[in-house]
Amino acid sequence: MLNAAINLQEKLACFGDQWSPKVIAELNDYQFKLVKLQGEFVWHRHDQTDEVFLVLAGRMSMAFRDRTVVLESGELFVVPKGIEHKPFAEAECSVLLVEPRGVVNTGEAGGALTAANDVWI
Amino acid sequence: MLNAAINLQEKLACFGDQWSPKVIAELNDYQFKLVKLQGEFVWHRHDQTDEVFLVLAGRMSMAFRDRTVVLESGELFVVPKGIEHKPFAEAECSVLLVEPRGVVNTGEAGGALTAANDVWI
Repeated sequence: MLNAAINLQEKLACFGDQWSPKVIAELNDYQFKLVKLQGEFVWHRHDQTDEVFLVLAGRMSMAFRDRTVVLESGELFVVPKGIEHKPFAEAECSVLLVEPRGVVNTGEAGGALTAANDVWI
Repeated sequence: MLNAAINLQEKLACFGDQWSPKVIAELNDYQFKLVKLQGEFVWHRHDQTDEVFLVLAGRMSMAFRDRTVVLESGELFVVPKGIEHKPFAEAECSVLLVEPRGVVNTGEAGGALTAANDVWI
């Protein structure tokens, strides 16, 4: 079945909650998710998969135990599987995530910021 | 191993050839590729995988046997596996492709526009 074109800005306008990824497309068993970030997330890791962040608007940082990577709009970053990381954004930042279906945002850490999974917009 | 942030505009400035995808990142066994399109490609399909197109600059069309989808900058589209398609762009268009490692640009069709695979920039 053919889908329509998916306009990222229109999809971003559909929600306001932060740290709660929304699925916009599937590629085989991978999902493309939009998420809005602001403030500090929790340290966590994904033991089974890498995770791609593509910053669409704003700026974020990805903290690792040994360094921090700053990501500007138009920059893509691959968080390797098994590596602890902690996203942070001073002002709200919009990100396109790509990862296998079923990945939970807080990884093995869980906690209050764990979002519902597989929420489509 | 941690990689650096990948700036899409800087990567796009690294090459000029059209219809020749360049790998910029890997997510597990999936690749993120940049490609510049202009003119008409060949009808082809990928029998084993879906394929994601995210238009970064310009405008393209994706022809299917029963309709054509226009994709503007900032729009994402999933070409389902097994479905014949033919990209077209009147003016040069820059696209981020996401698909499994090993996918050839012309799919089962082959021909003169078949690009070298797994070329990193």
